[in-house]
Amino acid sequence: MKFNVSAQLEYNISSASTLVLNIHALRTPEQTVLQETFTVNPEVRIEELQNIGGENRSIRLEVPDACQLKVNYTALVNNSFVITNHRKIQETPVSQLTPEILPFLSPSRYCQSDKLYRLANHMFGDIDSPYAQVMALTNWIRTNVLYLSGSTNAQTSAYDTVTEQAGVCRDFAHLGIALCRALTIPARYFTGYAYKLKPADFHACFEAYLGNQWVLFDATGLAPLNGMVKIATGRDAADAAVASIFGNAYGTRMTINCEVAEDNFKSYFYPSGKFEGLSYL
Amino acid sequence: MKFNVSAQLEYNISSASTLVLNIHALRTPEQTVLQETFTVNPEVRIEELQNIGGENRSIRLEVPDACQLKVNYTALVNNSFVITNHRKIQETPVSQLTPEILPFLSPSRYCQSDKLYRLANHMFGDIDSPYAQVMALTNWIRTNVLYLSGSTNAQTSAYDTVTEQAGVCRDFAHLGIALCRALTIPARYFTGYAYKLKPADFHACFEAYLGNQWVLFDATGLAPLNGMVKIATGRDAADAAVASIFGNAYGTRMTINCEVAEDNFKSYFYPSGKFEGLSYL
Amino acid sequence: MKFNVSAQLEYNISSASTLVLNIHALRTPEQTVLQETFTVNPEVRIEELQNIGGENRSIRLEVPDACQLKVNYTALVNNSFVITNHRKIQETPVSQLTPEILPFLSPSRYCQSDKLYRLANHMFGDIDSPYAQVMALTNWIRTNVLYLSGSTNAQTSAYDTVTEQAGVCRDFAHLGIALCRALTIPARYFTGYAYKLKPADFHACFEAYLGNQWVLFDATGLAPLNGMVKIATGRDAADAAVASIFGNAYGTRMTINCEVAEDNFKSYFYPSGKFEGLSYL
Amino acid sequence: MKFNVSAQLEYNISSASTLVLNIHALRTPEQTVLQETFTVNPEVRIEELQNIGGENRSIRLEVPDACQLKVNYTALVNNSFVITNHRKIQETPVSQLTPEILPFLSPSRYCQSDKLYRLANHMFGDIDSPYAQVMALTNWIRTNVLYLSGSTNAQTSAYDTVTEQAGVCRDFAHLGIALCRALTIPARYFTGYAYKLKPADFHACFEAYLGNQWVLFDATGLAPLNGMVKIATGRDAADAAVASIFGNAYGTRMTINCEVAEDNFKSYFYPSGKFEGLSYL
Repeated sequence: MKFNVSAQLEYNISSASTLVLNIHALRTPEQTVLQETFTVNPEVRIEELQNIGGENRSIRLEVPDACQLKVNYTALVNNSFVITNHRKIQETPVSQLTPEILPFLSPSRYCQSDKLYRLANHMFGDIDSPYAQVMALTNWIRTNVLYLSGSTNAQTSAYDTVTEQAGVCRDFAHLGIALCRALTIPARYFTGYAYKLKPADFHACFEAYLGNQWVLFDATGLAPLNGMVKIATGRDAADAAVASIFGNAYGTRMTINCEVAEDNFKSYFYPSGKFEGLSYL
Repeated sequence: MKFNVSAQLEYNISSASTLVLNIHALRTPEQTVLQETFTVNPEVRIEELQNIGGENRSIRLEVPDACQLKVNYTALVNNSFVITNHRKIQETPVSQLTPEILPFLSPSRYCQSDKLYRLANHMFGDIDSPYAQVMALTNWIRTNVLYLSGSTNAQTSAYDTVTEQAGVCRDFAHLGIALCRALTIPARYFTGYAYKLKPADFHACFEAYLGNQWVLFDATGLAPLNGMVKIATGRDAADAAVASIFGNAYGTRMTINCEVAEDNFKSYFYPSGKFEGLSYL
Repeated sequence: MKFNVSAQLEYNISSASTLVLNIHALRTPEQTVLQETFTVNPEVRIEELQNIGGENRSIRLEVPDACQLKVNYTALVNNSFVITNHRKIQETPVSQLTPEILPFLSPSRYCQSDKLYRLANHMFGDIDSPYAQVMALTNWIRTNVLYLSGSTNAQTSAYDTVTEQAGVCRDFAHLGIALCRALTIPARYFTGYAYKLKPADFHACFEAYLGNQWVLFDATGLAPLNGMVKIATGRDAADAAVASIFGNAYGTRMTINCEVAEDNFKSYFYPSGKFEGLSYL
Repeated sequence: MKFNVSAQLEYNISSASTLVLNIHALRTPEQTVLQETFTVNPEVRIEELQNIGGENRSIRLEVPDACQLKVNYTALVNNSFVITNHRKIQETPVSQLTPEILPFLSPSRYCQSDKLYRLANHMFGDIDSPYAQVMALTNWIRTNVLYLSGSTNAQTSAYDTVTEQAGVCRDFAHLGIALCRALTIPARYFTGYAYKLKPADFHACFEAYLGNQWVLFDATGLAPLNGMVKIATGRDAADAAVASIFGNAYGTRMTINCEVAEDNFKSYFYPSGKFEGLSYL
């Protein structure tokens, strides 16, 4: 499916600063960036840092002086996904996970799975397949955590959200990841552009590693699973923040857009009880 | 310098479990493992996972049944280090750090640098060189945090330790890392065998990235800086835990040893005011 | 029912210290202390502080010098309780609670009910009577929180326990209190001697204010509800600690005992579905 | 000194709710309420709850239905204070504190002094008088904690603020209290109307118990110490919240005012090095 995505960001820069942005659509074998523009005003030194956290396309901006910085990104992206039936897929035991996957079992800044071990196992430990566990915990989050703009901040973590039960997409994703890891299911953070997300914004979801695939889950339920353009993945938001700012700078405006560039988009959410898993490749 | 190191670990395994151990001496251009034995009793499937978190030599054990597992590691290691004068070395600004180094500025599970930003800058922000900042924060930790066995656990993080001011080497290292990152100095966790550490145990320190080198700091001051055999590095203990256990298992005994294998060892600690930095290569 | 209770406590005192102990059986209209001995060795200045937190019998010891302090308390106590059927009792709305009761709706040090509001209401908000809510949350704690000696410490609070799901009687009580308050049910901490508690120790439970009575609940289920001799009540353990120590001192030994002094004790626990509530008067 | 104070509060009430307000000027031997008006629109049942937390004048409103509730309070108050020189005043040891004072040594919801013990003693333990300790910690807070509206919320506590170093008057007060208690100095929360506070708002300070008097400290330094009209005191904000809401209601507007009603007000702050302590009686 083809998507037109765009992001306009503005920053108030008070002195020489460095920004690392994660807003570019990822290039993967199955996600092709057909066209792309990236402009920064005023012009500053720009560098693409391809290998932070694997394949993400982090962009570093070196802003030499105080200014109002305007960043404009647009892309036409073509991507594809598969939907797999996980009903009969065997779990990969920890003893057979590849070394690249193992770190996604460890606790991280915003996903303190070590502190949720008993809770996760009390709630979901008796469910007999990892797919069904992830589906159950995703549904639990959707039912129990209130989506409430402004209720959390950049320091909020899964340990807070599991108890306080309010947050935004980032918090929903962190809690999903933490619960998965506490159940010994590798999980990672996923950010992207999301078609039909209202209000339009960057979106955050999570992927669980099931049947040797990264399967997408969105505890917010706010956007169709098949309408995402992947920006970055990582252990949690610390690896894939939209913007990491070093210096005296703060964001003042952000306008995000994601539209389909062809007809026939049909929203896809997981049908109940079907054990389907969608994976971007 | 040549060192003989050894570790005997025992685990009570109640059912099929997977363990990932970080106890092997690292192999680097300047740390050569001359001899090495690794035995596990009873015999189980063993696999070396070379690329978790970069170059660490993680070992995965697949234990099929309940048992008393005994692990025995010995090595003769030859390593070297350099001591650099950092008085006149320019800081590498964030805009010039390589992509491999940037993740060590991000907060992690046990090093919530994002929550210590104001504190770190109030305490050490006016100090005029990064080296002097790291030295000052290391001294602050040594002076203010009480080394107290048993006062903390595997969930304790820098955010706790900065206030509660008690802990063990792991906690000292996490706090050092978090303060460095809050000052925009890349820092990572370092585990190793440590000569003259009393009581003998695995040791944890931290490295700050100064002048394009990873420079070793030990806020505990319990072992000479030149008596370390490096096991692993990572963002924090989540990346470099001695043992990660998946299954019903717990440690029952641990005996660690580290001796010099040649004469003429002379303990080295940073001399006051000299701006010296020791780096293992 | 008559009970013989006793407590022997020993403290290592390194320098002049003040201790405040809550170990004396409370005197109430329905709990009579028939006989009582209290000796402290060496002899120190002792004062009974009757009005801290209401009616508790706190004892202050002024220890002038370093010593091994031995405290010995014994009492023969006669107390009584009522069992009330709460099925048809109307809830007292907040608008009619007396001023003495209202503070037990506020969050306190170990019972951060303000942080558990959504969680408590998601889990128990739909249950239609306060009695049934308290019974349900007590059962939830008993089922989900693991009683594990040594898993927590004097800083552990309900906010920790609701997620980490392990603790001792004090933690079970704090969590029960916090959940009650989050449901707008006044609740307080209760400490006492408990017959049949194994191993013998001071016990902590909680009381919920239902139908204008303080009704006892014990989420641990470790001792019969009718075998308690009340020592103190308060907002949480900060009000009713066994010992508050000001100075360089720490406990070295504690031996507690509680025996019935007459025949015919029959253990009472709440029968399922009967809406019974036991209140000490 | 005479003051005219006023508060207009508005609440959006969605269903039957109970509110407990702490906005009335306290009546004490030395604070006389000369005139007072209190109107609530629409009219609801109002009750003054005199003995919550001692002498506070909590007001309970029983709102039977959804409405826009407008509360209007005005008072003309005459109060007095003393200024005592604490240079030569002996500390009252814990062994001689009266039972009414002792609870103000215990940790409370927002003042976790138990977790700040080592920190407080490292920073201020060597200072040789309690007065000087409180002055030093007040100055430390003023220097290191950034006054930043909106940086904290109703759940923020001293344990957060000591590390994150940003907050509002309530957070400054909680941290002051927690540090005092960690130094074994009784301390309590103080709310009031404050002349010259910009922008006008309710103010929060703290009182330390020194030389058998409650001495006022304001770590924010935003208002003269002699321009306060006392509303309430308590262990922390849990005891003296402006409004405790039971039901579906939230505040929509708040206008506070405090003016002197006579001439010759001269702002008083503690002069450096004079050991002066101001106490409202």
